[in-house]
Amino acid sequence: MSERDAAEDIMCATYRALCSHGYADLTMQDIADESTKSKAALHYHYDSKHDLLCSFLDYLYDQFVGRTADIDATAPRERLLALIDAVLEKSADDPEGFETALLEIRAQAPYESGFRERLTKFETYLVDAFTETLEAGIEDGSFHDGIDPEETARFLVTVLTGAATERVTVGHSVECTQRMLREYIRTHLYAEGEAAA
Amino acid sequence: MSERDAAEDIMCATYRALCSHGYADLTMQDIADESTKSKAALHYHYDSKHDLLCSFLDYLYDQFVGRTADIDATAPRERLLALIDAVLEKSADDPEGFETALLEIRAQAPYESGFRERLTKFETYLVDAFTETLEAGIEDGSFHDGIDPEETARFLVTVLTGAATERVTVGHSVECTQRMLREYIRTHLYAEGEAAA
Repeated sequence: MSERDAAEDIMCATYRALCSHGYADLTMQDIADESTKSKAALHYHYDSKHDLLCSFLDYLYDQFVGRTADIDATAPRERLLALIDAVLEKSADDPEGFETALLEIRAQAPYESGFRERLTKFETYLVDAFTETLEAGIEDGSFHDGIDPEETARFLVTVLTGAATERVTVGHSVECTQRMLREYIRTHLYAEGEAAA
Repeated sequence: MSERDAAEDIMCATYRALCSHGYADLTMQDIADESTKSKAALHYHYDSKHDLLCSFLDYLYDQFVGRTADIDATAPRERLLALIDAVLEKSADDPEGFETALLEIRAQAPYESGFRERLTKFETYLVDAFTETLEAGIEDGSFHDGIDPEETARFLVTVLTGAATERVTVGHSVECTQRMLREYIRTHLYAEGEAAA
């Protein structure tokens, strides 16, 4: 097994272990049990559970960046909706146990600078992707030129964060958020006279 | 000390203990240390930490309901903004430690039905309060009659949840959300021709 395959194996095992055990009670042994590696082998690759989970957040980031790189849509309106779907569908695909574990990890961010650093990197990536798409749409006339691209991008990310939290907290599906976001974009961001298009 | 004063003393002690210790490592002793009661006295009132925290969530709910009952504004637009401010300002007043502990508690909702039940009750209260205000505004012509009051109310709650999560996760202030929500309400919910009012 190459280094790369070994890392992939451990990341997949971490995903499964988080789904089953959550974050708080997760042990290196739980992850080893889901992988082809022994606990000793995991410790060879990663100093601690914290270290392994930081690598796991990097892995999720790379996966998400890969997903958005695969978006074919270049027209700003379609691209904006595709980016939102990439976030919401990831969230809908994952089992509730994984979403819960991720929220537990988010709640540790004030105590674990390695987590906050990675969560901030992910948030910045998403805000930048939305901002660029909104700017392109203002440029080509498909989005309203009165909107502030960066503030609007942050607002969209806040809505997506809220949807993910509510899924765990009160068990909501993401569909209501998806519908309302599409409505918001259509009536609030589309250039005037284009809302019915 | 009356039963009522004793309960209030324990709830205030729980608040302070959550601010200092977070949720995961919180013990009954930590709460006793912040109160005038002994750990044994706490156990007389509450069977377990879980039981005490359920009562604490009820206490937060009652406090929030009291805050919204104090809102003087009856005009739908002002009332909607006042409700949003009641949520965001509560969040801005609490130390980051408390917001973090609350997010930890939220992340436990799938495992602790007592938590989920209370978080759902809080969410339902807020959705209902927004829905009633939006309906009143559609009725008196201050809000656009094309909006779906309940879906819009849920969307507003999602944004507020996202803002609270981001405060913990990436350290954002709630001001950007407050600004964007006001802008959203003005341009998206106000009846047409009234946006500049």
